[in-house]
Amino acid sequence: MNEAVSQIQLSGIRRFNALARQTPGCLSLTLGEPEFDTPEPIKQAAVQSLEDNETHYPPNNGQDFLLEELSKFGHQRGLFYAPDEIVVTNGATEAIFCSLTALLNPGDEVIVPMPAFGLYEALITLCRGKTVPLDTVPFDFQLDEAALRACITEHTKAIVLTSPNNPTGCVYTKESLSAVAQVAGEYGIYILCDDVYHQMMYEGSCEAFGALFPHLRGQLIVIDSFSKPYAMTGWRLGWLMADREIKEQIQKVHQYSVVSVTSFTQRAAVEALHTDVTLMRCRYRERRDQVVRTLRAMDMDVVTPQGAFYAFPSIQKWGMTSEEFCTRLIQEAKLALVPGSCFGSEGFVRLSYCCSEEVLTEGLNRLYHFLKQL
Amino acid sequence: MNEAVSQIQLSGIRRFNALARQTPGCLSLTLGEPEFDTPEPIKQAAVQSLEDNETHYPPNNGQDFLLEELSKFGHQRGLFYAPDEIVVTNGATEAIFCSLTALLNPGDEVIVPMPAFGLYEALITLCRGKTVPLDTVPFDFQLDEAALRACITEHTKAIVLTSPNNPTGCVYTKESLSAVAQVAGEYGIYILCDDVYHQMMYEGSCEAFGALFPHLRGQLIVIDSFSKPYAMTGWRLGWLMADREIKEQIQKVHQYSVVSVTSFTQRAAVEALHTDVTLMRCRYRERRDQVVRTLRAMDMDVVTPQGAFYAFPSIQKWGMTSEEFCTRLIQEAKLALVPGSCFGSEGFVRLSYCCSEEVLTEGLNRLYHFLKQL
Repeated sequence: MNEAVSQIQLSGIRRFNALARQTPGCLSLTLGEPEFDTPEPIKQAAVQSLEDNETHYPPNNGQDFLLEELSKFGHQRGLFYAPDEIVVTNGATEAIFCSLTALLNPGDEVIVPMPAFGLYEALITLCRGKTVPLDTVPFDFQLDEAALRACITEHTKAIVLTSPNNPTGCVYTKESLSAVAQVAGEYGIYILCDDVYHQMMYEGSCEAFGALFPHLRGQLIVIDSFSKPYAMTGWRLGWLMADREIKEQIQKVHQYSVVSVTSFTQRAAVEALHTDVTLMRCRYRERRDQVVRTLRAMDMDVVTPQGAFYAFPSIQKWGMTSEEFCTRLIQEAKLALVPGSCFGSEGFVRLSYCCSEEVLTEGLNRLYHFLKQL
Repeated sequence: MNEAVSQIQLSGIRRFNALARQTPGCLSLTLGEPEFDTPEPIKQAAVQSLEDNETHYPPNNGQDFLLEELSKFGHQRGLFYAPDEIVVTNGATEAIFCSLTALLNPGDEVIVPMPAFGLYEALITLCRGKTVPLDTVPFDFQLDEAALRACITEHTKAIVLTSPNNPTGCVYTKESLSAVAQVAGEYGIYILCDDVYHQMMYEGSCEAFGALFPHLRGQLIVIDSFSKPYAMTGWRLGWLMADREIKEQIQKVHQYSVVSVTSFTQRAAVEALHTDVTLMRCRYRERRDQVVRTLRAMDMDVVTPQGAFYAFPSIQKWGMTSEEFCTRLIQEAKLALVPGSCFGSEGFVRLSYCCSEEVLTEGLNRLYHFLKQL
């Protein structure tokens, strides 16, 4: 069978979550799954679409009315893409998959700032490419130009940017983004902006890379998703925007791997774009504050997450691998977190705070008692 | 960008359909899109699921209750797969994509009986494999063992079987299937059974390859879909069944390319499996009879389609390429069919009869007048 597929492992996050489920009474702060249900008006738009019998093949790239709304939505962030430069995908995952597949030839290298969501490396492996890790740990999870330059080889094809970041919650500074723009411009490297958390910002602003550096449009792919901001993870709806020439290659991968997204979710997607998510964002911000405050009170070092819904505290002072730490945490305190090793950075754990307040408070309490007895 | 992707063309069927849309008053018998809307109880199951807030991430391979129903559904055809040997996919397309990706290394060859749905060749190209056409035209669209053996090389990895067939509507005889079983067994070749039309049979029976040759289970992947039998093309719901070892590789491709199908469609999928589709099938059978009768009255040679909803008449006696025939048909008679060349077989056209009776009758009428004036 395909050797590249054999090399890929199933997601470490899901593996640790399964371990938690096998442990009676274990609480889980592992998944990036909002506790909220999808807002009622969004659901009702899908119900109406079903009742209107929109059950037939939609256009491959998405319904025109949705593409137009997505185009306008991008404009608000300074990203100017026409409706025919957009593809609606089965979540951001399919957008990233199609993009990397359209870009990479075997042997091509992709720079991935670490720690990183494991999906990138798995997909790069599937494309028979090579993941080149750019360590952000020494720079408080920011991007250092010299470190970035050290990653460049003649095989470098692309760099992945995730801001706000999973798993760190950090937002790239203008200096970080300028370093990427400088180097990518110099070497003609594609930039894949995984922007799925850009609506979940708790302080400062999150400027779009493409808005800051419009001259790099011909090298840029922007990924976005309905999953996190609108609590629509189960809907499998995301999208990508790219210069027409790039998008035309990507849409072939999309058409031949999935045909299209579900037909009757597309009016609901428009409804989502008009939904005010301030309340959810406020709740996440409160939990972010609670997490940072509590972790620091436990003497855990953590860089303040400015966005997304993850914290990535250091566990280095306890002298264990993250795998060992998380395994003992499940066994001794019935709490599941994700080892930093799942994101390519040892010495950290990821805590997801998109759960209910009750679960979060009890989870932090269990972490406190676990650390105390170490 | 990826050279393999650059080599792939967008679907010829959709291209001809677009040409038809640009021609005012043109009728289209091009797409495999049932005229029927999804039956009411299936839609209501999705509405209920939305109202129950099943809007969160479902398990990657599908909900347990659906996997169990699919397992039982397979049993009825003599295909014995456990729920954990099944993956629910974004239509049959994603199932075929994941299967071929899991199987093929660059340079691997896949035997595809021609004419064939263009998806296979596109996906084989995407995997950097090679499509080896097995010409079925001289054998009334059946598979000849000697011709099949002539396709085998040391690089042969798999063979694709589509029965009932798109575009011919033919069903493979026991002799055809035995030839495949014999050769695949001898050479250890994987068999990809694209069975999406198996519920749409109008005469005789369509025995499942895996039921006839259970000893080849370790080389078999069975693909099925909700799209055609239940008029659910827009739902993007299909599934695959394979021996656990094969399925474990396939599910990695599935997880990393799309995560899962939409959460709230899965109860509807169960409802579909319990839906009686006899009435739709009867309507298709009537249209099939009408098409065959009318084409023959026009002096067109056509092998009687036993299943699916396509006819594939010969146009050889008119001395044109199928592309030229179809282009002139649109221009001179305002009727769109798909050239056989889109399916790898020159000298034929595909007529899809899953449209309304009215459209079909008028379409056949236009074809008659076009042929008369040639």
